[in-house]
Amino acid sequence: MDYRDAGVDISAADDAKGRIKVLAKGTFNAAVLSEIGSFGGLFRPDFGRFEDPVLVASTDGVGTKIRVAVAAGVHDTVGYDLVAHCVNDILVQGAVPLFFLDYIALGRMDPQRVESIVAGFARGCAEFGCPLIGGETAEMPGTYAPDDYDLAGFIVGVVDRKNALPQRVRPGDALLGLPSAGLHTNGYSLARKALFETAGYAIDTVIPEIGGTLGRALLAPHRGYLAALEPLVERRKLRALCHITGGGFPGNIPRVLPEGLGARVRKGSWEVPPLFRLIQKAGAVPEEEMFRTFNMGVGMVVVVAPEDLHDVEHSLERRGETSFVIGSVVEGQGVAFE
Amino acid sequence: MDYRDAGVDISAADDAKGRIKVLAKGTFNAAVLSEIGSFGGLFRPDFGRFEDPVLVASTDGVGTKIRVAVAAGVHDTVGYDLVAHCVNDILVQGAVPLFFLDYIALGRMDPQRVESIVAGFARGCAEFGCPLIGGETAEMPGTYAPDDYDLAGFIVGVVDRKNALPQRVRPGDALLGLPSAGLHTNGYSLARKALFETAGYAIDTVIPEIGGTLGRALLAPHRGYLAALEPLVERRKLRALCHITGGGFPGNIPRVLPEGLGARVRKGSWEVPPLFRLIQKAGAVPEEEMFRTFNMGVGMVVVVAPEDLHDVEHSLERRGETSFVIGSVVEGQGVAFE
Repeated sequence: MDYRDAGVDISAADDAKGRIKVLAKGTFNAAVLSEIGSFGGLFRPDFGRFEDPVLVASTDGVGTKIRVAVAAGVHDTVGYDLVAHCVNDILVQGAVPLFFLDYIALGRMDPQRVESIVAGFARGCAEFGCPLIGGETAEMPGTYAPDDYDLAGFIVGVVDRKNALPQRVRPGDALLGLPSAGLHTNGYSLARKALFETAGYAIDTVIPEIGGTLGRALLAPHRGYLAALEPLVERRKLRALCHITGGGFPGNIPRVLPEGLGARVRKGSWEVPPLFRLIQKAGAVPEEEMFRTFNMGVGMVVVVAPEDLHDVEHSLERRGETSFVIGSVVEGQGVAFE
Repeated sequence: MDYRDAGVDISAADDAKGRIKVLAKGTFNAAVLSEIGSFGGLFRPDFGRFEDPVLVASTDGVGTKIRVAVAAGVHDTVGYDLVAHCVNDILVQGAVPLFFLDYIALGRMDPQRVESIVAGFARGCAEFGCPLIGGETAEMPGTYAPDDYDLAGFIVGVVDRKNALPQRVRPGDALLGLPSAGLHTNGYSLARKALFETAGYAIDTVIPEIGGTLGRALLAPHRGYLAALEPLVERRKLRALCHITGGGFPGNIPRVLPEGLGARVRKGSWEVPPLFRLIQKAGAVPEEEMFRTFNMGVGMVVVVAPEDLHDVEHSLERRGETSFVIGSVVEGQGVAFE
């Protein structure tokens, strides 16, 4: 008996490693001192422009969006999703990315599959300027079905302590919503159950109101808001940012509000994209549950002092970013919809 | 239909988060500026004693050791394994830990199970001085069986550039082996197949030569070598370190040797622990396959200049660490056994 008999193919792993190395190298910058394949990735930070640099780290997964990717046979987008998700998570603290690492666990080591997945990571890492300096690719027969896998991403960024968000959030601050591209990476278990199990749609069912197949709409990549928001963080024009992820509006907005403050959100102030309405109808999901599961078309909420609102809106517009005032900060707690 | 109907229980997730928060807080030091629950963990590094600080990051999983944990119903050791594994991976570059993040994905959100897992992470993080500053806990019904889960860990450390390992490895350098505590985190797919499927043992089978049940022996925690080796890194007494993980001796030793150098390893120079012989016999695993799958009783290989060998051996001994000369660096490539 050898390791291959036990379902672990070291030769396939070596093949996969070779492909990863090429893709990762394409994301490197001058700060990266190591090659992929060392035990740890080496990164020499340049903190010259920071008065008091603080590292900001975050980790996440893409949840069961992977099962949609598997059903659709499209594997080069979920890695991108994960990078964008992680970039947004540290952006919320005011941080810009330094580097990224990935964890891939598969039921069967398929070098081409791994290459597709890592291509997604590499595309995101290149776009957001965070080199992919390390990772782990594990073949775990028995834990994962042969065709299935899971991903985790880890990001480290830096913020000057004086720019760390949130800060000075006050009642009367405006909440600006930035549009999401779809479900991003949250709510897929509910969406899949509603669409595929209850309504009986298939991954390739064409739905006219969403402009194509369900698979395509569900795999729409997670948007990263770094380019639009970084200049505003630098100019200290923002009081807080809130990435709408698992838990939706009520699960995330209170995370960036100080004790004693809540949010009022006007539901009619933006158009909920048809994909969310489709899921809601297919699964007869109560409206409240929709808002605590999905982003409902708002991927990032920006908290701005009233006197800065026009400045921020124009800055976003100049960078091609749409925004809409969805509510305000109020005395109280939690999120009240109106 | 709500999220719970789709197999995702947000209330259980909130319960788990509360438990994680308490455990993580116990690992904090003065550098941690955030609470668990923010989008990113904030860490303010003190690089005062470093001339040219380089960040070293690594990520890993524990592979199918988790399936042994599930079979044994013991969940508070695999997190420790993962921290020790990650600490060793960056130690190999000469780095000391700064902070750690965890990713936990489960088939069913069981707050008590999560608390056990995180207790293992927290124990490791406290022991190795790397605060647990963030993480993600994801319920993914469908990807994981209800009772199953997977873990990934992510570590960031720092090394002064002049102390980064490996450096100056030359033919004639000695290879010192430090004992492992068991399989650590590699080779579990093969071990499980050999012991449970082929030989028909059960998790609670008592095997006299391994001193107890198979479950206990297989779950023996991954050893972290930080305390024993950090002083030697500081004193620049080491040329390289090699963490024996997936790929065993031939898969790891060459990773820290420069082009044109290989290793000669004398098999009889240490005693292979009975657990490895048991697996070998149970699965009729060829000797070569054993050495490219398992650590065979050597968890870390230390590469030392001949003139420093006695100094290093005595330093290790003073810290209660056993070591044995297992071979040397030679001209050539790969690992030759004799």
